[in-house]
Amino acid sequence: MTPKIVRFIRSEQPATPCLVLDVDRVEHNYRAIRAAVPPAGVYYAMKANPARPILERLAALGCGFDAAGIEEIEACLAAGALPGVISFGHTVKKTSSILRAHRLGISLFAFDSEEELRKIARAAPGSRVYCRLMVANDGADWPLSRKFGTSAEEAIRLLPLAATLGLVPYGVSFHVGSQQTEPRAYADAIAEAALVFETLAAQGLILGFLNLGGGLPVRYREEVPGLDRFGETIMQALARHFGHAMPEIGIEPGRAIVGDAGLVSSEVVLVSRRDPDPGAPRWVYLDIGRFGGLAETEGEAIRYRLTTEHDGSETGRAVLAGPTCDGADILYEKAGYHLPLSLKAGDRLQIETAGAYVSTYAAQSFNGFTPLAEYYL
Amino acid sequence: MTPKIVRFIRSEQPATPCLVLDVDRVEHNYRAIRAAVPPAGVYYAMKANPARPILERLAALGCGFDAAGIEEIEACLAAGALPGVISFGHTVKKTSSILRAHRLGISLFAFDSEEELRKIARAAPGSRVYCRLMVANDGADWPLSRKFGTSAEEAIRLLPLAATLGLVPYGVSFHVGSQQTEPRAYADAIAEAALVFETLAAQGLILGFLNLGGGLPVRYREEVPGLDRFGETIMQALARHFGHAMPEIGIEPGRAIVGDAGLVSSEVVLVSRRDPDPGAPRWVYLDIGRFGGLAETEGEAIRYRLTTEHDGSETGRAVLAGPTCDGADILYEKAGYHLPLSLKAGDRLQIETAGAYVSTYAAQSFNGFTPLAEYYL
Repeated sequence: MTPKIVRFIRSEQPATPCLVLDVDRVEHNYRAIRAAVPPAGVYYAMKANPARPILERLAALGCGFDAAGIEEIEACLAAGALPGVISFGHTVKKTSSILRAHRLGISLFAFDSEEELRKIARAAPGSRVYCRLMVANDGADWPLSRKFGTSAEEAIRLLPLAATLGLVPYGVSFHVGSQQTEPRAYADAIAEAALVFETLAAQGLILGFLNLGGGLPVRYREEVPGLDRFGETIMQALARHFGHAMPEIGIEPGRAIVGDAGLVSSEVVLVSRRDPDPGAPRWVYLDIGRFGGLAETEGEAIRYRLTTEHDGSETGRAVLAGPTCDGADILYEKAGYHLPLSLKAGDRLQIETAGAYVSTYAAQSFNGFTPLAEYYL
Repeated sequence: MTPKIVRFIRSEQPATPCLVLDVDRVEHNYRAIRAAVPPAGVYYAMKANPARPILERLAALGCGFDAAGIEEIEACLAAGALPGVISFGHTVKKTSSILRAHRLGISLFAFDSEEELRKIARAAPGSRVYCRLMVANDGADWPLSRKFGTSAEEAIRLLPLAATLGLVPYGVSFHVGSQQTEPRAYADAIAEAALVFETLAAQGLILGFLNLGGGLPVRYREEVPGLDRFGETIMQALARHFGHAMPEIGIEPGRAIVGDAGLVSSEVVLVSRRDPDPGAPRWVYLDIGRFGGLAETEGEAIRYRLTTEHDGSETGRAVLAGPTCDGADILYEKAGYHLPLSLKAGDRLQIETAGAYVSTYAAQSFNGFTPLAEYYL
């Protein structure tokens, strides 16, 4: 919670639930990542939070953008980004979206299958393409490995095919999984990517681009290794595998750019003792839940830090649930949250480090609830 | 898929993803439920689909409404419903919502804890309240039992307390779980509710209302028992436990009113062989997924029936995934779906019986995707 956010909440007392985000912190995080991995061009994974003030600030700083859909591409162009700094990073795209992106001047596309490669070749001829590898996602709180990526063997088959289809076989990407807490995951993935570079170089195909993907973590309830540790590990791995023949490097942080820049302010709707056993946890129902934006609490994967005005007083076990009639709208039952015993309906509860992957997930109107308000300071 | 929907899709070819729903079918379903459980007043669980044309049709038929939030109450009043037929059925409500509902003339509220009961007593004095029991949810594809409801013992303690707080202790409700496929679940729950009626009657407190909740199933991929079987089981249980001293009966169907009235029309974005093993399933990516409205595919709980223009031709195993960059956006991996081998990117795929619990769940803008369009015929 930055001083600016503290002041805003104190003075404005905004109605809950709402997201409050400090855009200066976004700039700080962008600069910190640039400093930690100097050779890497940053492509902000804008799906983490595509709010206009964030895009405008980053575009003005010269940041690139990793877009998941055509609407995201249009949003960052509108915020002042040039087409040349935008990567259409989703490996599964409608042909109509590829066509529109091509017309807007986007010339960098991801793929992970022959079918998608052929779609890009038809709809965006001459574009640069990079192949997403499937790498291990161990250590990631929100893994992505099953749905996307292909094997090194398949990448080695598909990149030369791209050239014969009239595309520029530009490079390789991977994703170590979102909220990756283990720096080594990057080193292992870089080694795997280097193998593709080497094998293709031996065949005469020199790739120009290595995209390190996303995954840099933020601190939620538990500590995570600092950005410096990730930077060191990545730099060492790049030096070891590429030496002086370093390709263009890209990195796609989303969470690490906006996560700790914002928080969600919520209200306690009900605290009830559902079990007469005095040792049983209380149930604390908030006015935001899994369908109001906290989608990453699914399986209790992302465990947010929660703060209240009663912090410091005696606490007791609590189950946390969202406000909807849906039985699946339970946030934390097993993660062992403790909250102040004095917490009661009507109190404000802050969900810290909630700037990423919240606002866009909010259901448009489940149970009649409107999506949370958003304030960018 | 009703003839009206078939004609609309054929003639209009609406852009995907979209929900197309036949409001005549809603009326048909309402009448069928009235016929199957004649003594029960129907309170439509509008969270299943609160679209204005549905609310207007049902209000004109004299149907009641089970509302989950204050915005839902306002929506059904705007659609022509009178306050007297509206139940504020959520057991967890903001005090501000109770106040507003009370001012709008709503006088029937659910609760399942002493804390909530006291909130209602303060914000809506003199109202009728009913206590939600926690009952077994075995047989339900989308269980609700952990988050809501209380024990019979607690209900027997709280209903007399309601009277001392200036409320009318009106009755008891339960919820056997959504998409309940076992008629006996209702009989067992009615027996449990009857125990509360009898115990309180012996203490001189005569309850006037038994709310059977929701749960009536629709046919997705698998067959379910017909409405007649549920009706018979419910009628027998009511006769056995209440005889001639039958209280006012309510029932809260949502899915059974709108589920089979609508479908989602989607487009195949990509079909890829992600595993070189020819026996491995293809991956079929649609332009709608778990965050675009198909939230009930979480854990592969609700297994929709899928139809394509290639139906009848040779099929093969398929994994189904949504269009977002999110690794959790996978619909069916284990449920053993088979789809035509000739299915390809750009083809239309219909998700049948998707009129309930889809449109409102759609994320407002994840990956830049706008929520699905909706057509009410």
